Amino acid sequence: MLQEEIRRRNLGTLLRHVHLDGSVSRAALAERMGLNRSTIMALTSELTAAGLVREEAPTDTGRTGRPSLVVRPETAGVYVLAFDVAVDWVTAARVGLGGVLLDRRWASRPRAGADLDRVVDVLAGFGRQLLDAAPPEAVCVGLGASYCGMIRPGDGMVRFGPDLGWVDQAFGAELGRRLGLPRPVPVGNEAHLGAVAEQRRGAGVGFQNMIYLHGDVGVGGGIIVGGRLLDGDGGYACELGHMVVNPHHGRPCGCGSHGCLEAEVGERALLDAAGRPADLFGRAALRDVVTDAGRGDPAAREALRRIGDWLGVGVANLINLFNPGIVIFGGMLRDVYSGAADPVRARIAANVLPVARERVRLRTSALGDDATLVGAAELGFTELLADPLGGAVPALPPRW
Amino acid sequence: MLQEEIRRRNLGTLLRHVHLDGSVSRAALAERMGLNRSTIMALTSELTAAGLVREEAPTDTGRTGRPSLVVRPETAGVYVLAFDVAVDWVTAARVGLGGVLLDRRWASRPRAGADLDRVVDVLAGFGRQLLDAAPPEAVCVGLGASYCGMIRPGDGMVRFGPDLGWVDQAFGAELGRRLGLPRPVPVGNEAHLGAVAEQRRGAGVGFQNMIYLHGDVGVGGGIIVGGRLLDGDGGYACELGHMVVNPHHGRPCGCGSHGCLEAEVGERALLDAAGRPADLFGRAALRDVVTDAGRGDPAAREALRRIGDWLGVGVANLINLFNPGIVIFGGMLRDVYSGAADPVRARIAANVLPVARERVRLRTSALGDDATLVGAAELGFTELLADPLGGAVPALPPRW
Repeated sequence: MLQEEIRRRNLGTLLRHVHLDGSVSRAALAERMGLNRSTIMALTSELTAAGLVREEAPTDTGRTGRPSLVVRPETAGVYVLAFDVAVDWVTAARVGLGGVLLDRRWASRPRAGADLDRVVDVLAGFGRQLLDAAPPEAVCVGLGASYCGMIRPGDGMVRFGPDLGWVDQAFGAELGRRLGLPRPVPVGNEAHLGAVAEQRRGAGVGFQNMIYLHGDVGVGGGIIVGGRLLDGDGGYACELGHMVVNPHHGRPCGCGSHGCLEAEVGERALLDAAGRPADLFGRAALRDVVTDAGRGDPAAREALRRIGDWLGVGVANLINLFNPGIVIFGGMLRDVYSGAADPVRARIAANVLPVARERVRLRTSALGDDATLVGAAELGFTELLADPLGGAVPALPPRW
Repeated sequence: MLQEEIRRRNLGTLLRHVHLDGSVSRAALAERMGLNRSTIMALTSELTAAGLVREEAPTDTGRTGRPSLVVRPETAGVYVLAFDVAVDWVTAARVGLGGVLLDRRWASRPRAGADLDRVVDVLAGFGRQLLDAAPPEAVCVGLGASYCGMIRPGDGMVRFGPDLGWVDQAFGAELGRRLGLPRPVPVGNEAHLGAVAEQRRGAGVGFQNMIYLHGDVGVGGGIIVGGRLLDGDGGYACELGHMVVNPHHGRPCGCGSHGCLEAEVGERALLDAAGRPADLFGRAALRDVVTDAGRGDPAAREALRRIGDWLGVGVANLINLFNPGIVIFGGMLRDVYSGAADPVRARIAANVLPVARERVRLRTSALGDDATLVGAAELGFTELLADPLGGAVPALPPRW
């Protein structure tokens, strides 16, 4: 390998450690990267000169002896714009290196009639506001967007987004164009990005094999296999919401099939099971069911038991298939799981082979509704972390 | 990286190309490995001196000019012992470098009363016969075994083998001991090994994302993700036969649950659906149903339609989860799929999201009932391919 390649890779690795941990001592970096301290010092100097990190004396370590300097990301000076299109809202945020949320804009979204133009319009407006509000010396190093549908890798094309009724909509390209960028904004599926966010900064830290179930109105999935997001041949893997669990007696699903996991455990299934009116929808209505069940309301309790049983069937299948270390419930499934952990666990005990359930943990998302946005920000940082000084030395002029 | 490490890795890579392709020109090796011809020549000379490959003039290429020498594996001189414990038979074989089956022993096995001792006894006897029948100058470089159950990586412990009623049986260690070896024989799950074999030498060549369904009496799976076998946290992943597809109305499964894919499409399910007597079992009985259906027998046709529908539900779920390039039906599922391709395809059309089914191919196993044995042989070659000259220069004295 060429010397220059090794240096670039080391710079990227060091910056990634600092980005993910927020603050790492030189000594820890040397140990983790298997490099001596003088090499770490040289790499850190380069990143400092480029305005990406700074070195500080650590706060009191309680130990004697000369403490190792601590390397921190330049959170305020280096940021990405992250966008999130969920079924019921759109968000945009400025996220600093280190994953810190610096500023955000949010708007609810009507379920009907959200065409590409309207959504991009709102997001591009948010994006400009966030850029205008940023300190003049701060640098935007990338963008990333999360969308509640199936996304073609490379160009951010929404191939299938049933919740908004989108098919083959050039979301990434259009958002890029409206922001005056020369290329599409990178876009990822919300559950894929939520999974990456939970693995890097949430409940999944340290797990190499992880299943993340993301409930929005439907149910999406992000599956980490050996530390990497499962993508499949076309980038369309992880569609665990369309695993059919009830083939002959199942509820109709938005995808056109019947008995998909999302049809049996999605928002509508829970509200119907609890006997709520057909025109009621949304996160608040769903939380009411969980709250009512907690207060002992029989209809709400029975609804959660039934939905929990179906959720358990799906999760048990995933554990048999993936033998993961952890299963994380995100989005609205945090609420559902918190009220239905017992039937989920009962199904796992009944359906999962003993050796595969020996060690698996079940947890709710640590990042909550920010998981998808945090994942979109990570997408925005990808390029910087791959080549921290690439064509942008000194002072990192805007790449966008 | 140290020079010695690079050399070792290059030797392994070159030998792997020759092992998998059977015959590769020096020119092709240089191109694939990104090395110049003189380096390839030096590496080939080392492998030739160690008795692992030989160089030959190619058979007439039809082109003018000096042809590039062809490198071939020393198939007759370098071999592994491969073992396969299926539900209805046991096999052992001597498999030469290059994956060539040189000699084999086979015995049918009664379904009841096959304890560890008896199985190991038969296999160790086969092993000794195969070693005795080998040319005296040939060298055994490894061993590998396939077993129809869940295997703990590292020591070949059968954690759960419901078809033979084994729980926590030290199969790999015991087989090693009976063969007089200082350590356990490496063991893999039959479907995992079948998947690896199909990917390297069968219908899955060239595919990075592949699902292999292996029907024995039950149904196992081997899933290749990004070129690697999906193992999960403990090595127990891929248990697609225990994906529950019929949770409330399902047939009882050997694992203790109900409605597992293997309970709905396994041997017993098909024979019952076709109205065959309860004391009938085995591959021949199963093939009779497929043959009868082909001749127009209504009960057999309806049985295959029903079993095919369940198989389709399972395969559709897997395609939604993995977005694979190919799905391969192996073991007895070759027979089932050949008679039930229509209902399987109908379910895929109904249940799989369009973007995930755009390109997926459905195929039967190319290696047939040898897939698991070929996979076991590949397990046996692992160590040689990782370090072709490791401690065994010159002339590769027996490692076992």
